Amino acid sequence: MREDADAPVAEAADALPQVRDSDGNLADGFREAIRAAIAARDVDRLRALTGDLHEADMGDLIEELDGDERRRLIEMLGPAFDFTALTELDETVRVGILRGLSPLTVARGMRDIDSDDAVYILEDLDEEEMAAVLQHLPAPERVALRRSLDYPEDSAGRRMQTEFIAVPPFWTVGRTIDYMRETPDLPETFYEVFVVDPAYRLVGSVSLDRLLRTRRTMLVTQVKTEQLKGVKATDDQEDVARLFERYNLVSAPVVDDAGRLVGVMTIDDVVDVIQEEADEDLRALAGVGSDEELSDSVAYTAKSRLPWLVVNLGTAFISASIIGLFEATIEKMVALAVLMPIVASMGGNAGTQTMTVAVRALATKELSSHNARRIVSREVLVGLFNGLALACMLGLIAGAWFANVQLGAVIASALVMNMMAAGLFGILIPLAISWLKLDPAVASGVFVTTVTDTVGFFAFLGLATWWFGA
Amino acid sequence: MREDADAPVAEAADALPQVRDSDGNLADGFREAIRAAIAARDVDRLRALTGDLHEADMGDLIEELDGDERRRLIEMLGPAFDFTALTELDETVRVGILRGLSPLTVARGMRDIDSDDAVYILEDLDEEEMAAVLQHLPAPERVALRRSLDYPEDSAGRRMQTEFIAVPPFWTVGRTIDYMRETPDLPETFYEVFVVDPAYRLVGSVSLDRLLRTRRTMLVTQVKTEQLKGVKATDDQEDVARLFERYNLVSAPVVDDAGRLVGVMTIDDVVDVIQEEADEDLRALAGVGSDEELSDSVAYTAKSRLPWLVVNLGTAFISASIIGLFEATIEKMVALAVLMPIVASMGGNAGTQTMTVAVRALATKELSSHNARRIVSREVLVGLFNGLALACMLGLIAGAWFANVQLGAVIASALVMNMMAAGLFGILIPLAISWLKLDPAVASGVFVTTVTDTVGFFAFLGLATWWFGA
Repeated sequence: MREDADAPVAEAADALPQVRDSDGNLADGFREAIRAAIAARDVDRLRALTGDLHEADMGDLIEELDGDERRRLIEMLGPAFDFTALTELDETVRVGILRGLSPLTVARGMRDIDSDDAVYILEDLDEEEMAAVLQHLPAPERVALRRSLDYPEDSAGRRMQTEFIAVPPFWTVGRTIDYMRETPDLPETFYEVFVVDPAYRLVGSVSLDRLLRTRRTMLVTQVKTEQLKGVKATDDQEDVARLFERYNLVSAPVVDDAGRLVGVMTIDDVVDVIQEEADEDLRALAGVGSDEELSDSVAYTAKSRLPWLVVNLGTAFISASIIGLFEATIEKMVALAVLMPIVASMGGNAGTQTMTVAVRALATKELSSHNARRIVSREVLVGLFNGLALACMLGLIAGAWFANVQLGAVIASALVMNMMAAGLFGILIPLAISWLKLDPAVASGVFVTTVTDTVGFFAFLGLATWWFGA
Repeated sequence: MREDADAPVAEAADALPQVRDSDGNLADGFREAIRAAIAARDVDRLRALTGDLHEADMGDLIEELDGDERRRLIEMLGPAFDFTALTELDETVRVGILRGLSPLTVARGMRDIDSDDAVYILEDLDEEEMAAVLQHLPAPERVALRRSLDYPEDSAGRRMQTEFIAVPPFWTVGRTIDYMRETPDLPETFYEVFVVDPAYRLVGSVSLDRLLRTRRTMLVTQVKTEQLKGVKATDDQEDVARLFERYNLVSAPVVDDAGRLVGVMTIDDVVDVIQEEADEDLRALAGVGSDEELSDSVAYTAKSRLPWLVVNLGTAFISASIIGLFEATIEKMVALAVLMPIVASMGGNAGTQTMTVAVRALATKELSSHNARRIVSREVLVGLFNGLALACMLGLIAGAWFANVQLGAVIASALVMNMMAAGLFGILIPLAISWLKLDPAVASGVFVTTVTDTVGFFAFLGLATWWFGA
């Protein structure tokens, strides 16, 4: 968002390259202009190019530069560089930049930004590096940041902004508005004003639109909303996100154990949490670590993905050993080897469908013990119906392929069994994992496909052995 | 959020059952109290129970009632029922309720709620039902709703609120604040005031905090922010969500083709879009329709999941026919049949890991033509490294199992090949689909696993045939 500009500046801006192309990606021309300015050490040109750049655009730009260019960009811009842009970067890139700058430079950058952004930037550093930065900050800011950093990772205390407006209950609406007009150092953006008692305990809040449409003589306590659903600093950010989402909040006060107001969570942080959370489920289901980023190195990526693949290797041996039980049958009838992956694969797909629905429904609290029974029977019936439909097709094609009607009947029956198992275990496994208070997204996939592979091979080869004789 | 209440009411509220239990689910006691009140036709008790219930809690409550109870709840509450609660429901449930009520009752409900919520509720009805409701509304509201409904599905025009505050450029801050104090019929919540010219074209906006901290004598044009990144009513809601997310917006003006202000999009709608979008990717990757809901019937669910399974049946035949090419080899060495699913399954998992990362990176615009080359080579190298690591384990175990070192070497080589293919196609397929302007989440999965199955079976059985002779 470009701030209001006088006409001459607006005209000059026309001469600068477009920041984004029509697809919403950073424009090549803009990036190359920045690169050229860095290479030419042309500070004026660089400042002109980045003058009214939003922190998000600056973040995207930094991601596309190489390591050395990143450091030089920040050094050349000096105090004109808004460190908030670092919150937009992948963790690897951010930490790399912070380590390349002097602690004093980082500390100066931290002073100019909101406390929640400073915490977000500093929390990835190790204790020593953090201390080196914090020692360059004035005591009040250092204490506030340190207090936020002492809250557990992913808690409301880490994500909250410690700048807010709190007024005593006996103030009028008019006095509150005058106070805001006269105080120069207000938070950058805010959506409500809090009412606190002398011990700084939260009494209620007044939204700005409420403040604006109320007569100046009213007391703030007369127009305040009581916050019965307050956020505790130790609450997990996901629970806070759920609260914002459910009640359409834009900001919420954060209180400590004693009920004292210590900060405010705002919707922009919550949007990031919601995005992250859905992303985590998606990655977990695919066996990708939640902290993997596009900028990670080959070695790091390979290492982080390996454990899941090793687990999968173990379960693959379980299904292989099921096949091993029927070696004699396969030897007599090699068509079974050709067809058996079909039964396993269909079950795996159906199981994944059910499991994905279950994992998301558990995450959004739509699936609970109250409706679990209904959903379990629905999924088994869906497995039965789709199993029957697919079994007709599969039985006909397989029977025709090997000119063996009985083989067609055997594979069709095995498919129906496996599709029902897929529906049943596709929902029971995530439910069981969530009852154990673990994250169903992480572990469900491996169990579900193990079950569908095992049941698939066992049902098909077992039925064939029984029917055709070993 | 309970509104500020006088002491007696607050005391009475203590006697009512808790709405939510400690896990954040709707409490059983509360639901049963509601059920009992409905069964006893006790309107007073029902109103006392639901008096200060938030629309989100009301929505969750309705979901847990059965069809008849839902209708009776709404009828018993009468004008006290806030139709906004319907926006919290699954589409199937919402449409069921709307069809059970008279068009006049629905129209009365629509008059009391925000226009964006009314559009969200009405858009699922068919044309005739919609017309029946709209005819009971006064002309100005009918026209406004109709105009929103005429915008394409999932566009900003559908999601925008048509209630907003717009002032002429020559107004002062003081006059704007006085206007808000004196106008009774303001939007329920708002975060900014818009400045429009006499033709109602958008000139800029002023956030409420800006308004509050500025002297009354300043002109609104002097404090306005120019909206260079305006939202068009025809823009897709996902593009709007991306804009809100990138620039941390809480509201944005929506303009028509002529640049006239027609509405405002607010963050609460955008949060829903972000959530939906991530959910859609997740479901699409698992082959579940994006509109499937937990309350859908068995028949509907089965029907919507079947097409993907049929496609999978087709691709399963492709891999089966690859195995069919090597029947003679398998007949001679049945151990191949036992081991071959391992190679295919490992490739499928590795391919899914890569594909998931690629699909999300494409959705969030992190992956573009600019860094595609680097990411492709990273993924192939990750496949190579993890392939080598896993091949050692697999080769040793398989060789020992069948007391055949050469078999171990063959399966190890086949695994490395398939893991590299998984990395390569896991990223190339989503990229290619997005270049075709299609949604990579929908179609990538089936192509990737087809490739890894085919390559897996072909590499393993082909190498074995070449090494051991057919």
